[in-house]
Amino acid sequence: MAPVSSNLTNTANSYDLQMNDSITFGHYIFQRLLSLGTKSVFGVPGDFNLPLLEYLYDDFQSPDTKEKTSIRWVGGCNELNSAYSADGYSRYTNKISCLITTFGVGELSAINGVSGSFAENIKVLHIVGVPSTKITESPVQKNWNLHHLVPSMDCPNFNPPNHNVYHDMIKDKISCSTHILSDITKAADMVDQVILDIYKYSRPGYLFVPSNFPDMLVSTKNLIDRPTITMDDALALNSIDSNFSLSHMKDLTRRILKILYKSETPAVVCDMLVDRYGGKKLINEFINRTKIRNFVTPLSKSTIDETNENYVGLYNGKQSNAKVIEHFENSDLVLHYGVFSNEVNTGVYSHSYGPNTTLIQLNPTYLRVVEYENGHHSELIYRDVNFLHILKQLLKDIDLSKLNFKYQPLATRVKQETIENSDGKITQASLGQAFPSTFNPGDILVADTGAFQFSIRDFVFHSQMKYITQGFYLSIGMALPCALGVGVAMQDYPLEHVYDKSKLPKNYTPRLILCEGDGAAQMTVQELSTMIREKISIEIYLWNNDGYTIERAIMGPTRSYNDIAAWNWTTLLNSFGDINGKLTNSVTIETQSDLVAKLKDLKEGDNNKCIEFMEVMLGKVDYPPQLQQMVNDQKKGAKK
Amino acid sequence: MAPVSSNLTNTANSYDLQMNDSITFGHYIFQRLLSLGTKSVFGVPGDFNLPLLEYLYDDFQSPDTKEKTSIRWVGGCNELNSAYSADGYSRYTNKISCLITTFGVGELSAINGVSGSFAENIKVLHIVGVPSTKITESPVQKNWNLHHLVPSMDCPNFNPPNHNVYHDMIKDKISCSTHILSDITKAADMVDQVILDIYKYSRPGYLFVPSNFPDMLVSTKNLIDRPTITMDDALALNSIDSNFSLSHMKDLTRRILKILYKSETPAVVCDMLVDRYGGKKLINEFINRTKIRNFVTPLSKSTIDETNENYVGLYNGKQSNAKVIEHFENSDLVLHYGVFSNEVNTGVYSHSYGPNTTLIQLNPTYLRVVEYENGHHSELIYRDVNFLHILKQLLKDIDLSKLNFKYQPLATRVKQETIENSDGKITQASLGQAFPSTFNPGDILVADTGAFQFSIRDFVFHSQMKYITQGFYLSIGMALPCALGVGVAMQDYPLEHVYDKSKLPKNYTPRLILCEGDGAAQMTVQELSTMIREKISIEIYLWNNDGYTIERAIMGPTRSYNDIAAWNWTTLLNSFGDINGKLTNSVTIETQSDLVAKLKDLKEGDNNKCIEFMEVMLGKVDYPPQLQQMVNDQKKGAKK
Repeated sequence: MAPVSSNLTNTANSYDLQMNDSITFGHYIFQRLLSLGTKSVFGVPGDFNLPLLEYLYDDFQSPDTKEKTSIRWVGGCNELNSAYSADGYSRYTNKISCLITTFGVGELSAINGVSGSFAENIKVLHIVGVPSTKITESPVQKNWNLHHLVPSMDCPNFNPPNHNVYHDMIKDKISCSTHILSDITKAADMVDQVILDIYKYSRPGYLFVPSNFPDMLVSTKNLIDRPTITMDDALALNSIDSNFSLSHMKDLTRRILKILYKSETPAVVCDMLVDRYGGKKLINEFINRTKIRNFVTPLSKSTIDETNENYVGLYNGKQSNAKVIEHFENSDLVLHYGVFSNEVNTGVYSHSYGPNTTLIQLNPTYLRVVEYENGHHSELIYRDVNFLHILKQLLKDIDLSKLNFKYQPLATRVKQETIENSDGKITQASLGQAFPSTFNPGDILVADTGAFQFSIRDFVFHSQMKYITQGFYLSIGMALPCALGVGVAMQDYPLEHVYDKSKLPKNYTPRLILCEGDGAAQMTVQELSTMIREKISIEIYLWNNDGYTIERAIMGPTRSYNDIAAWNWTTLLNSFGDINGKLTNSVTIETQSDLVAKLKDLKEGDNNKCIEFMEVMLGKVDYPPQLQQMVNDQKKGAKK
Repeated sequence: MAPVSSNLTNTANSYDLQMNDSITFGHYIFQRLLSLGTKSVFGVPGDFNLPLLEYLYDDFQSPDTKEKTSIRWVGGCNELNSAYSADGYSRYTNKISCLITTFGVGELSAINGVSGSFAENIKVLHIVGVPSTKITESPVQKNWNLHHLVPSMDCPNFNPPNHNVYHDMIKDKISCSTHILSDITKAADMVDQVILDIYKYSRPGYLFVPSNFPDMLVSTKNLIDRPTITMDDALALNSIDSNFSLSHMKDLTRRILKILYKSETPAVVCDMLVDRYGGKKLINEFINRTKIRNFVTPLSKSTIDETNENYVGLYNGKQSNAKVIEHFENSDLVLHYGVFSNEVNTGVYSHSYGPNTTLIQLNPTYLRVVEYENGHHSELIYRDVNFLHILKQLLKDIDLSKLNFKYQPLATRVKQETIENSDGKITQASLGQAFPSTFNPGDILVADTGAFQFSIRDFVFHSQMKYITQGFYLSIGMALPCALGVGVAMQDYPLEHVYDKSKLPKNYTPRLILCEGDGAAQMTVQELSTMIREKISIEIYLWNNDGYTIERAIMGPTRSYNDIAAWNWTTLLNSFGDINGKLTNSVTIETQSDLVAKLKDLKEGDNNKCIEFMEVMLGKVDYPPQLQQMVNDQKKGAKK
């Protein structure tokens, strides 16, 4: 089945989409994705998605240059890994990433990755290749038990299968917008609709594409009328839907400013949704102009520039550093942007305010004002108010001369002593102290769920750094394939995360640094081979603590269920394809002095290989102090 | 949280369960599993299942010897792999296997494996550790967004999550029996109920166990009243439910025998559900006593002893060998046992009968008789009739002297010439010819979905061999972790698959042989390390054909989406833990003569290592003739 040639006019370097032309639906999907900036797509082939994948090899029109361009296919070793990679691509670019899998076996393998994207508001379009409508609409064949499709619960020899069973599993559960395509005349509109929804909710959406659809023709009209679709389009629609008006917004902004002008010790908490909705640059501008004290949460770390002189630290309720708690509770006004309330992000719902603190929460769909006065509190909620619009208006309307802050001196930036263990070995505590020394401004840190994640909370990052971790859904093994997606994204969009290039060293290329434990790495390790194939520049720190140390902290420190197989980590990259060792370098690090030296070498760019792999030996039951404290708190809570 | 000590009386070697005693629910679960013969359980730890896993280390009562015994925990590298392993354990033993995962991140990672078990009627109990009822029943905490739990689709800061969202995904879709435990007084009954249902439907069931339940006490009553639960218990219940009576069954048996006594060219088709419901020995007895011509289907291969003189071959409608089709269509009576009608198992619904053939289908829940006479056909269906009961009655009542078969000579056993390629290289055709020479009676072959699976269809197996493949659901990557499960089961139950030991060479230990393609292997490869850790004796053939060759046969033979990374396969076992090479041996085989020599060496037991790994080099676009034919048929079909 050769692809139908499309009616696109194309010469060597120019490439025009003509009004009223038709193109194949397969071409439409990839051209639309490219118009969003999705230059690479992730997935695994399968018989029901092959007709779509054929269109990967067409020529497309670059949304920027209008020149002829192509799409990159990044095949994963398995679908869960590809889902994690697609998640990483979107976390880095803040664009919509694309995952393509096949019916049943593929889509279900990916489901936990998509679920994580849903939980943490990541914008992934999951396209599933499903059986042809020639089968599902045939009076005879629709009753067949097809391969990859679970048969009916009742006797499958008499009862037909439910062709939508996998759709029914995810709709409204881990997908914000879910479409089974069945009418080719509506297919292009549905693609655009799912994209608008993904932006609006900042969550994954699904398209189920029958295997006979990619070859069918659709109109180019949507591509001509709306050459690209942006998050602003989705948010503007949202506002129009809700009769939200500019005057209303200006009025709300005035009220916020009135409260801010009265405040002596206001605080900004920058939370997760700020980054997801593209508000990073705006919030930093707000902080820099107002000089307001500022905090992050566990899920928003690196969203604000931690080198700003008014950065206090990571606030996580009772699970925060004591000095950070003191500063937070002294605030008479808390402006909490992009709130995501959950167990992890609030120190198990332990946010605590001063007795007269006013709390203003600004979110994608609402503004909430809680005022406390003389023991009474009043609460006002304004629905359908987008926090980015408010933030822009605040920046426009603010009169800095009316600000009147009277802060106590900032006491969180105590330079901590380097921890030296007498036996020269590395502990989680000494590691947590030493590790930040490797960073340069603009570097990207990807970390897996695990003990070390707790240390990172109290790192102070350089300017323009980006930190990526699945901090709430906490699916171990996610970070390695996620880092592949980030690496691909950095190849497609170097410096996309940098909004102020002046903060980087001259001609500096930001590094990608991955940290993960051995238990997590074993889950998804084969994607190292895709890193080799895609020539991802990356430094990988593998914490070898001989098992699931984070679980050991919770229960069963010496139980066999927390043990894993002992691997020969430093030969893995050779096994996974770097046969002659030209691309990679692997070492085992056992002492603090070797670790410090390596961190320094890599900081200074003294790496001559594409992939640097460091196996760092740690104790089996050695936990960072932050993890130990959380577990102690939980145990205390359980005893109550 | 230390496990509550149970009230079991136990001395050094005896171990009694006392009537009216209480034991912890965690202990109950594992004691009940052990009573079914489930000696090893599979899974991955996570914070919500740790309290249950703690009870793995209790002492249990052996169902056979009543002595003190223990349960083995087989930790997988990830949950999908563990689901495949649990599937393999059940495929080999035909007992209920057990998979334990944690809330959300674990259970969803496993979902595709469980879905495959559902599609192919494998008996897996999936236990998911979920949050404590102290949380889910607390007026405040039940509204919290917990880690591992996807938040609400509507604004999660105001709307509570659905704690049962993952349950809702699988209930009635890929689970025959699904229970969220919420009342400890009913918990033991629910365990027993899900077990009965798993037997009854031969499909996976789910138990969601809150993390505070394993430590609670339950009565031992169920364990005393019903020391074990068997498939017969489940089927007997089924029959009682349906008022199915012995006299009715005898009457049906008489009718079948009447038709059989008249038949001159009857055939038995032994299909998938025969094995799943434990009818393998019975069907072979029926075949051996009656000397009836017999066939298997793609999903039942190895259920009947192919060395019986009346074995014709694998019947798969139009996708069968021409001689097999001829014999099948000449049958005037087809007794089709354990029918599973689906696309793969019927040559895309192309079973074809002679003009006057009588068809009798015997299934776990019905008997169907279709008679064709003079162009007319009549159809009778008897519901709630179990084919095993009928088969037992047939064997009891049959009068062999009344059989009157008049078969044409059997023409399928043509000894094919060995294929020699002039360049000495190995092709799928030459491989398919040479490979069966390695088998001894009683060997176990596990094969992944892929090109080579098509060759196996026409192998003629030795007596007592068992073939395991996911032939309908077709999820690539399944076979490697499945083979781990089979290997663990063979350690727990050596010779469980052998019903006639006299057919084995003297003192012979059956071998476990795994075949899979490189694309499939990359999906789940890390489970090789668990094979090393569990000291599984296995021979692994890795067909290195540089990508997804089965997809290349369908579409895109040279497309990059069908390419995979080139690995250094023969160093993998070293990387995965056999650091000093004591347990494993890896070689690359490039010529037919080297292959034939290796097949012979291993047949003769000339392997001194636990794991023998053979990387066999094949052509990138070389397909076995059976696959080529299927694809050609499909393309012809598509053109119609």
